[in-house]
Amino acid sequence: MIPPKSSKSLRNSLAAMADGQRAEVLAADCPSRAVLAHISSRWGVLVLVVLLDGTQRFSQLRRAIGGVSEKMLAQTLDALAYDGLVLRVAQQVMPPHVEYSLTPLGREAAERLEALVDWIEDNFAQIRQAQEAATTAAA
Amino acid sequence: MIPPKSSKSLRNSLAAMADGQRAEVLAADCPSRAVLAHISSRWGVLVLVVLLDGTQRFSQLRRAIGGVSEKMLAQTLDALAYDGLVLRVAQQVMPPHVEYSLTPLGREAAERLEALVDWIEDNFAQIRQAQEAATTAAA
Repeated sequence: MIPPKSSKSLRNSLAAMADGQRAEVLAADCPSRAVLAHISSRWGVLVLVVLLDGTQRFSQLRRAIGGVSEKMLAQTLDALAYDGLVLRVAQQVMPPHVEYSLTPLGREAAERLEALVDWIEDNFAQIRQAQEAATTAAA
Repeated sequence: MIPPKSSKSLRNSLAAMADGQRAEVLAADCPSRAVLAHISSRWGVLVLVVLLDGTQRFSQLRRAIGGVSEKMLAQTLDALAYDGLVLRVAQQVMPPHVEYSLTPLGREAAERLEALVDWIEDNFAQIRQAQEAATTAAA
């Protein structure tokens, strides 16, 4: 479990939010920054998007996401569960295993990330052209 | 300028794409992974979203994005310019300065990121509740 930060600035931000102020990711001390970091991390994006396909075990997630290590996948799932985006359910069967799924909140985040991932995949040829032009210009 | 990776797997992926295969961020060796990393990096997200407000100088970007260092902002802008998402224009005036803006491609990416950032800000109270419940459960 990730312990919450407890600096003075964080407490001030939380107090401001309790007063009805909106979270503001552009502010260095807003705790929403940590959520953005979890959601938009390399593995966070891919875990959330893969879970849109439905409940999955750890081993299934690991197979679906090329190149992720066991350690990074575990850390990513911890952070997303802590934020209330991913639900972890231990199945009391033999052999016991844990299943991961999106919460309703997690599904909303994942849908926005899927739009981003789809956009990258759809536009990758154009991005590659820009990269080649930049490399040629620098040579 | 970031040099392109040139491993065998990357060349294979590019060859596959030239053959009309789609980029696939779930594949460990797909070069679209690097684009996802640039776009969804902590500072990449914020730079793209801030540039939706229009052309800005380096110093303006730095002020708008709380907590970013000069070095990280410069690296982030380099990566986004390399991907063809951000345009860098040197203004030949006194004193000379550089202006940054979104390319049409960058605007499309930024709009998707803005949807994500807005969602986090709108739902942050609910995420905080989940975090508090997780902390209580762990205590």
